[in-house]
Amino acid sequence: MTIYKDHPLKIYNSLSNEKEIFTPIQDGHVGMYVCGPTVYSNVHLGNVRTFLSFDIIYRYLLHLGYKVRYVRNITDVGHLVDDADSGEDKIAKRARLEQLEPMEIVQRYTVDFHDILQKFNLLPPSIEPTATGHMIEQINVIQNIIDKGYAYESNGSVYFDVAKYSEDYDYGVLSHRDLIHTLDNSRPLDGQSDKRNEQGFALWKRADPHHIMRWPSPWSDGFPGWHTECTTMSTKYLGQRFDILGGGMDLKFPHHECEIAQGEASTGHAPVNYWLHANMLTLNGKKMSKSSGNNILPDEILAGDNPVLSKAFSASVTRFFMLQTHYRSIMDFSNEAILAAEKGYDRLMKAINSLSKLEPGNRSTLDIAGWEAKCYEALDDDFNTPILISHLFEGVTYINQLKDKSAILSATDLEHFNKGISTFVFDVLGLEMRSGVYDSYAEKLDGTIKLLIEIRNKVRADRNFTLSDQIRNRLAELAIKLNDSKEETTFNY
Amino acid sequence: MTIYKDHPLKIYNSLSNEKEIFTPIQDGHVGMYVCGPTVYSNVHLGNVRTFLSFDIIYRYLLHLGYKVRYVRNITDVGHLVDDADSGEDKIAKRARLEQLEPMEIVQRYTVDFHDILQKFNLLPPSIEPTATGHMIEQINVIQNIIDKGYAYESNGSVYFDVAKYSEDYDYGVLSHRDLIHTLDNSRPLDGQSDKRNEQGFALWKRADPHHIMRWPSPWSDGFPGWHTECTTMSTKYLGQRFDILGGGMDLKFPHHECEIAQGEASTGHAPVNYWLHANMLTLNGKKMSKSSGNNILPDEILAGDNPVLSKAFSASVTRFFMLQTHYRSIMDFSNEAILAAEKGYDRLMKAINSLSKLEPGNRSTLDIAGWEAKCYEALDDDFNTPILISHLFEGVTYINQLKDKSAILSATDLEHFNKGISTFVFDVLGLEMRSGVYDSYAEKLDGTIKLLIEIRNKVRADRNFTLSDQIRNRLAELAIKLNDSKEETTFNY
Repeated sequence: MTIYKDHPLKIYNSLSNEKEIFTPIQDGHVGMYVCGPTVYSNVHLGNVRTFLSFDIIYRYLLHLGYKVRYVRNITDVGHLVDDADSGEDKIAKRARLEQLEPMEIVQRYTVDFHDILQKFNLLPPSIEPTATGHMIEQINVIQNIIDKGYAYESNGSVYFDVAKYSEDYDYGVLSHRDLIHTLDNSRPLDGQSDKRNEQGFALWKRADPHHIMRWPSPWSDGFPGWHTECTTMSTKYLGQRFDILGGGMDLKFPHHECEIAQGEASTGHAPVNYWLHANMLTLNGKKMSKSSGNNILPDEILAGDNPVLSKAFSASVTRFFMLQTHYRSIMDFSNEAILAAEKGYDRLMKAINSLSKLEPGNRSTLDIAGWEAKCYEALDDDFNTPILISHLFEGVTYINQLKDKSAILSATDLEHFNKGISTFVFDVLGLEMRSGVYDSYAEKLDGTIKLLIEIRNKVRADRNFTLSDQIRNRLAELAIKLNDSKEETTFNY
Repeated sequence: MTIYKDHPLKIYNSLSNEKEIFTPIQDGHVGMYVCGPTVYSNVHLGNVRTFLSFDIIYRYLLHLGYKVRYVRNITDVGHLVDDADSGEDKIAKRARLEQLEPMEIVQRYTVDFHDILQKFNLLPPSIEPTATGHMIEQINVIQNIIDKGYAYESNGSVYFDVAKYSEDYDYGVLSHRDLIHTLDNSRPLDGQSDKRNEQGFALWKRADPHHIMRWPSPWSDGFPGWHTECTTMSTKYLGQRFDILGGGMDLKFPHHECEIAQGEASTGHAPVNYWLHANMLTLNGKKMSKSSGNNILPDEILAGDNPVLSKAFSASVTRFFMLQTHYRSIMDFSNEAILAAEKGYDRLMKAINSLSKLEPGNRSTLDIAGWEAKCYEALDDDFNTPILISHLFEGVTYINQLKDKSAILSATDLEHFNKGISTFVFDVLGLEMRSGVYDSYAEKLDGTIKLLIEIRNKVRADRNFTLSDQIRNRLAELAIKLNDSKEETTFNY
């Protein structure tokens, strides 16, 4: 279905700092590039949030009927420790510390990255190119920028000439800063660098003699700069100008600013129409950091294995929790917040489960078309998942009204409602019901426990407290806890 | 633990057609390269068997304490439709048919490959290089062979000169055929080819104008030959001479024969010490083939979704089934055979489960050290998993003897036995018990049902048949069936 024609999608563009109507370059097609991970350590929860944000965008574009080519790279060389042009290559450093071949480091953390994203039900991108896999292409891109006069070779390395570029173009359009004048007055070069000026960034770095990641080039045996790979791979697979480039907020400067400069210098025009940035994730109100211990890994959530947590949470609950915050807002992770999200998630899933068992009436007292329109409006408004979720809970209220017969729906409306809610919950938000086996066991288990509670109520009424206590104790041995209250006995396990 | 010193490992080497004592080039280290998939279609069951064979070898080498660098490539360019030097590139062809960018095809089937191998619990290799990721390196390898005089450029393509090579080396050492004289009398070149002689194979192919997968080279814009990538990537990560190269039997000729020729031509010596080949898999006694319908996909086994199957089988049962045949023997898949394997698998897992609950005695009446030695002997003899499995079932007999008290083990021997059996079953064979959640639910469910049966027995003794029937009926509603016999009531669900 190509329903995108009915959906004037508004996207917040970091270039204009405004929501803009989304118009793809080629009608019905979307080219989207997302800056992927540098695979030198385990993926952290902030990464998961960033990629989840773009997973929702990808899923919604697909749902609208766009043919999407979604490219997300793997950075396996060129990302230096200080994120600028000095320090060791992050992967080479890790390889040295772990006494492994750099490509063993790359493989280990690429596998971890894929594994985690799969657990959280993120769709794989259409193409997942690697920096080392595009050496010839990167050398060509660099040569082209040199030919255009915006880069120079110095001592085997190649630098982008920001001063020259600023004469012809505006450097700083994305971060909205007058970078060239600010930085002209900044710290002087210390003589250690081959760069002509501080703002210049490396397109190609000559490798030190001990550096094991190296490739031949017209300038030296070396390796490409971090910013070069994204320009190279995005344009190779999406063309010289494409629709969407996304990444974490921290990539705006210098990474994305440099990509714009490289693109303009190569082609004379902007490389990307819409720049999207996902905001960061904090833990208990503070920035996550490994060194301070204020940190949590995705697998620790699934296992409940972190002092911050009172229990384990499923990947789908974690996903739901994250989607309660809009992708452009800071999200704070805390045990209380995800516990609350779990309750909401269970309520939603229980409602959806019961929806399929409801009988239609002969007319409708609820406005399903209006409800669906509001859900779409939320998504059309810069992919606003928290607003969508609030409408889904309005849907839960509807379901409860249908169950207690205070509302009815015609057969057509009931089917429409059922289809709509599962589209938003499963297709767009990517949430999952529990697996079949697990479900059927849980259902049988809940059924047997309820039967035991009924029998226990009966024998208590008969004042047979021996058997009543026996039932409670035997269940306790199985780690099933009964909670007696005045009204009823509930259980948990 | 470095127990490899106590294990003179014998490996069947296709070069000598004999079992040889395995001696790695560098003490304690093993370099192993396995030819990976060409990612242009879904992985089939024969592929799974091949990679499983090398998974066992990898796991056992790791268990012995070797530091293993295991490289398995992804072929994402250069593999032509007829497996030789003509026809379209397999990936480019699929891309054309599906109207996708070739790298979208590569991504789709790489994801499928990883997904299936993960389901079957195969360990990821240490490095997983791609052909497109090593373009510069392949061009260097080709240039080196040209420089050595064993390759020539013709019309933008580069061919390996088998005639010249045969003057100095023996072409056919692996397939044990006098290839050069056999083929000299074969069909003449038809004038369509740029090759000097039929046996020559392409190292670099000039791309046709419409061919979208192309890279610049000293000879033409084109792409590397299939055999070139493996020589390039194996030597890049494992050195000019390494220990083990493995693959399916069908790769012996021409693929592996060509790799030997390329290696010898480049360096003057053999590239690999031990060549290992996994045999094929048939279905109901016949070669699997998509066109004839005599075919089964890995996912179809897991879902029970193929006319050949009476039910679904878990990945671990399938794995166990495959390991009942030695990797060098043809394995036939049939519903009866995997059903039988499942019974054996359940018996084995049940026994292992009960082993941990056994109490030690004050002496031992079973020879555990002798049993363990036989298990190791089986693996040391060219990774003979069927013999190992027969010893594991001897272990099951031991466990049953321990359960019925016809045998006893001291605490030390019991621990030794427990550790040994789980090493072989879980670490080396890579089999898996059911998952934690599933297990804990099943345990709780079994516990609650048993409690209900006890209560039912009590109320029946009290002639309260109303409640007794109610329990039976309520359980039946949950699809839990009670079976009354004279001695006891059992259940199934």
